[in-house]
Amino acid sequence: MSPKNAFYAQSGGVTAVINASACGVIETARKHTDKIANVYAGRNGIIGALTEDLIDTSQESDADIAALRHTPSGAFGSCRHKLKGLDESKAEYERLIEVFKAHNIGYFFYNGGGDSQDTSHKVSQIGEKLGYPITCVGIPKTVDNDLPITDNCPGFGSVAKYVAVSIREASFDVASMAKTSTKIFVMEVMGRHAGWIAAAGGLACEKEGDAPHIILFPEVTFNQEKFLAKVDHAVKTYGYCSIVVSEGVRNTEGQFLAEAGGKDAFGHAQLGGVAPVVAQLVKDNLGYKYHWAVADYLQRSARHIASKTDVDQAYELGKAAVELAIAGNNAVMPTVDRVSDEPYEWKIGHANLADVANVEKMMPAEYISEDGFGITDACRRYLQPLIQGEDYPPYKNGLPQYVTLKNAGVPKKLDTTFEIKK
Amino acid sequence: MSPKNAFYAQSGGVTAVINASACGVIETARKHTDKIANVYAGRNGIIGALTEDLIDTSQESDADIAALRHTPSGAFGSCRHKLKGLDESKAEYERLIEVFKAHNIGYFFYNGGGDSQDTSHKVSQIGEKLGYPITCVGIPKTVDNDLPITDNCPGFGSVAKYVAVSIREASFDVASMAKTSTKIFVMEVMGRHAGWIAAAGGLACEKEGDAPHIILFPEVTFNQEKFLAKVDHAVKTYGYCSIVVSEGVRNTEGQFLAEAGGKDAFGHAQLGGVAPVVAQLVKDNLGYKYHWAVADYLQRSARHIASKTDVDQAYELGKAAVELAIAGNNAVMPTVDRVSDEPYEWKIGHANLADVANVEKMMPAEYISEDGFGITDACRRYLQPLIQGEDYPPYKNGLPQYVTLKNAGVPKKLDTTFEIKK
Repeated sequence: MSPKNAFYAQSGGVTAVINASACGVIETARKHTDKIANVYAGRNGIIGALTEDLIDTSQESDADIAALRHTPSGAFGSCRHKLKGLDESKAEYERLIEVFKAHNIGYFFYNGGGDSQDTSHKVSQIGEKLGYPITCVGIPKTVDNDLPITDNCPGFGSVAKYVAVSIREASFDVASMAKTSTKIFVMEVMGRHAGWIAAAGGLACEKEGDAPHIILFPEVTFNQEKFLAKVDHAVKTYGYCSIVVSEGVRNTEGQFLAEAGGKDAFGHAQLGGVAPVVAQLVKDNLGYKYHWAVADYLQRSARHIASKTDVDQAYELGKAAVELAIAGNNAVMPTVDRVSDEPYEWKIGHANLADVANVEKMMPAEYISEDGFGITDACRRYLQPLIQGEDYPPYKNGLPQYVTLKNAGVPKKLDTTFEIKK
Repeated sequence: MSPKNAFYAQSGGVTAVINASACGVIETARKHTDKIANVYAGRNGIIGALTEDLIDTSQESDADIAALRHTPSGAFGSCRHKLKGLDESKAEYERLIEVFKAHNIGYFFYNGGGDSQDTSHKVSQIGEKLGYPITCVGIPKTVDNDLPITDNCPGFGSVAKYVAVSIREASFDVASMAKTSTKIFVMEVMGRHAGWIAAAGGLACEKEGDAPHIILFPEVTFNQEKFLAKVDHAVKTYGYCSIVVSEGVRNTEGQFLAEAGGKDAFGHAQLGGVAPVVAQLVKDNLGYKYHWAVADYLQRSARHIASKTDVDQAYELGKAAVELAIAGNNAVMPTVDRVSDEPYEWKIGHANLADVANVEKMMPAEYISEDGFGITDACRRYLQPLIQGEDYPPYKNGLPQYVTLKNAGVPKKLDTTFEIKK
């Protein structure tokens, strides 16, 4: 059988290590040219497939592909376009087949989170249901760490490390100043539905009194009275109070705390900004001077402080995806399987996309401490290995050297266009 | 002459490298026990001297003192207490003499910014004016980079590196998502009066189209129309727009932009939060989806991504302070003297505190590009060497290992107390 081309796309919010998965896919494919002729990447994710806007990765040098391993963001562009069911979005699936057929694409690699694995699952069915045989393998990626079956999700470990390192550093700063100045520090992190990222801040606390003293999880309804009492206790006991707050924290009415405080100066209520609300609450009730930070994209793009474990896993999952595909596996996703906590050992396994699609892994209740403001030992055992190791990018002129690919287009073969529905 | 003790204190906002200067002071003093018997650190800065709350650094191991070199924050605590003139604050200077006399202190090392060098200068005069001879040496430190004579100030280079690295990483992220999602990213950085830190973001832009596309300086009055036109141009040309904004940006009425937007939900106007104001302005006028980050303390405590140049200079300035003192120099401050830009060479010099006190070094007008939104080649030549080199701290369990000293108190010798006036 003559080799087919592969389609690879990045989907959803990008991370510090999604390009490491891309690197694993392309480097592995280049070793198997008897099976995979070329890897075409979707420009801006699946939109690139639908609009026949494909990137010819064979025009990138081996060195540039290798540099993807240490480059954050999505090198080919990503998007948040979600394909619905085969019946509902039949035109989109038929268009995919039209483009795949025109470019002799026999493999589909989709690198993303929950929605993307659902899409992968649907694409894996087009062989049987729409008569276009294709080998479809999902590659996990999400800072939200909410995919099932896999022990963890690439991208999460590096955000976790960034958050733990950052809250430790800023807390050292506050501790120095607390006697006569700032006593409260609030750092806002991502996580609208699950507190995985906020929980990672807890790793910085290794012994009694260490920061952070309080973590506010989306899983725990905000209790102002208990919170203020805990803040006051920390200030009186340790001299200061360091707080990690998840953007998704809600009040007893179920509103995001970030919005419940009221509208901003322009009358808008956009999520992102719970840190100032929490800080002001402390000031108003306890009178302590505060500082706050919102890490936003800095946390998920911080390749300079990426977890080596995370980078290694991201690469290996990309590599495994190609190996699974050329071995004839359809509708699967490679996974990280934990062998042991300490010493930490892991291996690559795989799951059926049917079991992954539409299942969201929440943080177990037993990972949150009884008072709702910290993490348990079980949580620490789970999280600790994921931030292990440093994997520094190369520097020039004091700055990390991240690659920007040529991203040359594959000449179009179709004379049709396709309009993306929003 | 039998050796005297030295007093060392950290002052003002702490940095990623002020402890490297402390390390230089203490390690060097330990090599000159014929001149300096012991180094007593002020607990929480000068307040420790006034309240006779001294820390006995001889109780710290050589290994822990060495670890100060890679530990951010102020290991002995800092404060923002400013001593006024010798006449106005005579009681405070007399109290200092009382404490110094009781503890046989003959050297005074004060590690801080402009106000602290002014204090150092005043303390240097107590020999002549109040009859207590003391050798007084200031050690420069400030992320604001606004001390005169010295080429740059320890602490600044590491913030500069953090800001340049962070805006590069976050901008890679935004570039990936811009086609269908976030098009605007705004990162707020420190700098109420001078744009040095914001300017450092410009180092990430190495060629046409690179982020950041816009820098908003406190030195340049905010022009909404020109700003929005530039944002729109960037989005239309590069697909996205990445913005670094200094917390000190002001509008045509001279108000901080962060405050001019209105009060927050609680009716307060606390500085810190210009990023959301700028982002919302873009959304309201151009409709682009945005994200924003406020780095706050993360930027000045980010020892994990410190500039090696900065760490080296901080250490050498601490060392030089001791060497200047034991050579009999009073009322001086060691400086970084630039020998050449490229290859970057520097040496340690020194200035008279009389020439340092009350002089603020502003950013030269020729460092800001003609349109007011970027940096010039001259600025780049100045800034580039300051972020050179990485100096990673040691890690354990995936986290940087920062030292917390024992900070044992020196037994009090006085039966008097002193009340600090606020």
